Amino acid sequence: MNQHPSTSLGLLTDLYQLTMAYGYWRTGRAERLATFHLYFRNAPFKSAYAVTAGLGAVADYLDRFHFDESDTDYLAGLKGNDGESLFEDEFLSYLRRLELCVDIDAMPEGTIAFGGEPILRVTGPIAQGQLLETALLNIINFQTLIATKANRIVSVAGEHPVLEFGLRRSQGIDGGLSASRAAYVGGCSATSNVLAGKTFGIPVKGTHAHSWVMSFQSEHEAFEAYANSMPGNCVFLVDTYDTLEGINNAIDVGQKLRARGHEMIGIRLDSGDLAYLSNQARQMLDKAGFPNATIVASNDLDEHTIESLISQGASINVWGVGTKLATAYDQPALGGVYKLGAIQDDNGNWQPRMKFSDQTVKMSIPGQLQVYRFVSDGLMQFDMIDDDLLPSGKGSSIIDPNDPHRSRAINNDCTSTPLLRQWLLQGERVSEVESLASIRQRVREQCSMLDASRKRLMNPHEYPVGLSESLHRQRERLRKEQCS
Amino acid sequence: MNQHPSTSLGLLTDLYQLTMAYGYWRTGRAERLATFHLYFRNAPFKSAYAVTAGLGAVADYLDRFHFDESDTDYLAGLKGNDGESLFEDEFLSYLRRLELCVDIDAMPEGTIAFGGEPILRVTGPIAQGQLLETALLNIINFQTLIATKANRIVSVAGEHPVLEFGLRRSQGIDGGLSASRAAYVGGCSATSNVLAGKTFGIPVKGTHAHSWVMSFQSEHEAFEAYANSMPGNCVFLVDTYDTLEGINNAIDVGQKLRARGHEMIGIRLDSGDLAYLSNQARQMLDKAGFPNATIVASNDLDEHTIESLISQGASINVWGVGTKLATAYDQPALGGVYKLGAIQDDNGNWQPRMKFSDQTVKMSIPGQLQVYRFVSDGLMQFDMIDDDLLPSGKGSSIIDPNDPHRSRAINNDCTSTPLLRQWLLQGERVSEVESLASIRQRVREQCSMLDASRKRLMNPHEYPVGLSESLHRQRERLRKEQCS
Repeated sequence: MNQHPSTSLGLLTDLYQLTMAYGYWRTGRAERLATFHLYFRNAPFKSAYAVTAGLGAVADYLDRFHFDESDTDYLAGLKGNDGESLFEDEFLSYLRRLELCVDIDAMPEGTIAFGGEPILRVTGPIAQGQLLETALLNIINFQTLIATKANRIVSVAGEHPVLEFGLRRSQGIDGGLSASRAAYVGGCSATSNVLAGKTFGIPVKGTHAHSWVMSFQSEHEAFEAYANSMPGNCVFLVDTYDTLEGINNAIDVGQKLRARGHEMIGIRLDSGDLAYLSNQARQMLDKAGFPNATIVASNDLDEHTIESLISQGASINVWGVGTKLATAYDQPALGGVYKLGAIQDDNGNWQPRMKFSDQTVKMSIPGQLQVYRFVSDGLMQFDMIDDDLLPSGKGSSIIDPNDPHRSRAINNDCTSTPLLRQWLLQGERVSEVESLASIRQRVREQCSMLDASRKRLMNPHEYPVGLSESLHRQRERLRKEQCS
Repeated sequence: MNQHPSTSLGLLTDLYQLTMAYGYWRTGRAERLATFHLYFRNAPFKSAYAVTAGLGAVADYLDRFHFDESDTDYLAGLKGNDGESLFEDEFLSYLRRLELCVDIDAMPEGTIAFGGEPILRVTGPIAQGQLLETALLNIINFQTLIATKANRIVSVAGEHPVLEFGLRRSQGIDGGLSASRAAYVGGCSATSNVLAGKTFGIPVKGTHAHSWVMSFQSEHEAFEAYANSMPGNCVFLVDTYDTLEGINNAIDVGQKLRARGHEMIGIRLDSGDLAYLSNQARQMLDKAGFPNATIVASNDLDEHTIESLISQGASINVWGVGTKLATAYDQPALGGVYKLGAIQDDNGNWQPRMKFSDQTVKMSIPGQLQVYRFVSDGLMQFDMIDDDLLPSGKGSSIIDPNDPHRSRAINNDCTSTPLLRQWLLQGERVSEVESLASIRQRVREQCSMLDASRKRLMNPHEYPVGLSESLHRQRERLRKEQCS
């Protein structure tokens, strides 16, 4: 919702980013170069992989990343515990003058990514890296979450299209808009959300609701009125009163429509036992001479109910998914984090940095990281995380970051490609804005390079992601230094 | 996210609302008056009640509900199955000229509402009621969901403040903004979201993250630098390396700060066993002369973990909640619906309308509904749903809409108040924009009128909501007519 009439988005951040930026500025460290990595520890939905999304929205955000006078006026009014202003005026002038000069390297949208891999890397003045953190996480976390959910659903639906219908239950207006965009990235065919259609060029679909039927004296009259108004867009919702009777009404109106030279598209089922009713509907439609009429199904669907309905032999040609997709109902947040990987010391030398934790899985990976993907025979084999600050030379194996006992030899027959690509250089975009069509194409290509075992809904085969030998040694060294 | 640069929000709807509006227009019914009700069947989180929110955002949306030329140009390009334009030009002119003239009656924001009760009622030309549906559901569903979640959390936290920290994991940028607003409505004390602070006047809180500590050579140095920069805003995050050591560093820097005439606010724990660590921290702080230092805790908290930590005697004074609040993690969507209740016939007489279903709970309530709340001894006793189209006279009992065998006598000692209040008349707002302060005050007042048994997290005591006797009779009549 556009409840922020100002066009600046500098304040779209957590207060502690601003207090830290102030602290860096006060201590003369604001311009010190640092590298941050954005990554998730585990793919969502117990999936083996995620589909990255959101970079397009990040571009829009960065265009509006600045502080106008009303922003700094607001900040000038914030007080600390002692009643004093939190920020001094000179810092607020610094914010108003701030021009973004960070470098960002990122996986292109629609890349298949795995837990632990940086999907975005920010290098620049530490104060800037900090001020960007919250919005980058917000955008990338949510769109990656939804693109991944959509991809799971379309993978199960196979050749049958999946339509996204989630706006009415999504989390806020732009929660809905960005869900529609990310769902399309992940593989959905269309959305019901007209503003998303206009804004992003996504195909839109929809016909009528129960209220249309209820506003007439009878369902038959309602279908006829609809067919007269829009003969080229007839999908009749048949379950307002009695579904089987509704199918008969649809068939009758479909025959009249045909007599006038138009073909009904089909019917929609929105309640009841979708396996039973879709098979009944298929028989009735076939028998009446409508073998090509589509049966659209909706009603709290997700990848699991769709897989179950398919395995039961349901006659459903189009899947309409809403709430469970647009809110990622079974896991409504991706736990992406943004961690400091390296910082320059007083002499301008890069120092790797690492966050420790009692839990190995929560220890961060130090350095200025890059991810290499190894492919052979048209299939992704494994990914290696390396540190650009270390001397090159990849070694002969990769080591599991969460368990040093697990390693894997690097096959010589693989080709390797770096996944993080230069996207912003000194604050300026250096790569073209990608079309949604080319992003969708990337998703399809990369999915076809994933072994089927990695795409299973339940207990997918884990994909190997490891550290280069030199990065592993450096991380061990830092860990031991900290422990001593 | 402001990815919709246009200021018009007419297209923020499902395509089927537009095709239905077109159908109404084509069949000469667009201006026929109809009444729709927005309600949820069950309160979220297995709660007995919900806290309504979102009307402020609805007002902003209505201000932008119109179709500009770029909107109708977009619609002009949509095609049906037959390759013909979906909409004819004259309808698009109708949309461009459209001026909202509906009446809206609504429960004020911050009202305690129960399953089955209309929280908003729209009466006006049916095409308009339809076009508004999706956005009304989107806004009210999400904000009511989050206000309710926040209310559950603050109810458990009691006198200790709850801070909302969810922006980085919320569903899109405005998902984050509206979550911050709704969380404040529900009872949170502050947010980390600075833009929400500026936009809505919500207090903002925050100090520093792990990255601040990691950017210095040592934690002690990092705390000192922070204290020097912002002596009036010192909450030290103590778990970057080792929590107990971190507490000692905080105490040391706190003593130096005190020597300079400033008092540290406290410390924050963000990992580990919060019960154990908070008690250790309390002892250490007390012993060192900081009995008033606050202990802030965060890390995937919700009402259940907070209740558990309190019951374990944890020494936590401030609760920071993020993901689980801002996304309503355990139920990320409220299933609010919007159903036709009545429509005028050709002669201008109102006809009640009802959606049928195999499940009683999914049958709608016909009429032009109002909700009356009955209160005695300062406690809410029960609510009655009545139909304004029926002759007045409330009868002597209310009947459960889902089970006609259950009824309840109306006590004579209760005062009753209608909950839906005129909010929009012929498209014009007739009530003041409420301040968040007065909305929060309503939440507190109404919560104090709820018996404690209704506020339990687990298995709360169900609150009675019934139909008036005359509405019950009318609904039975319609049901029988449909079955016959």
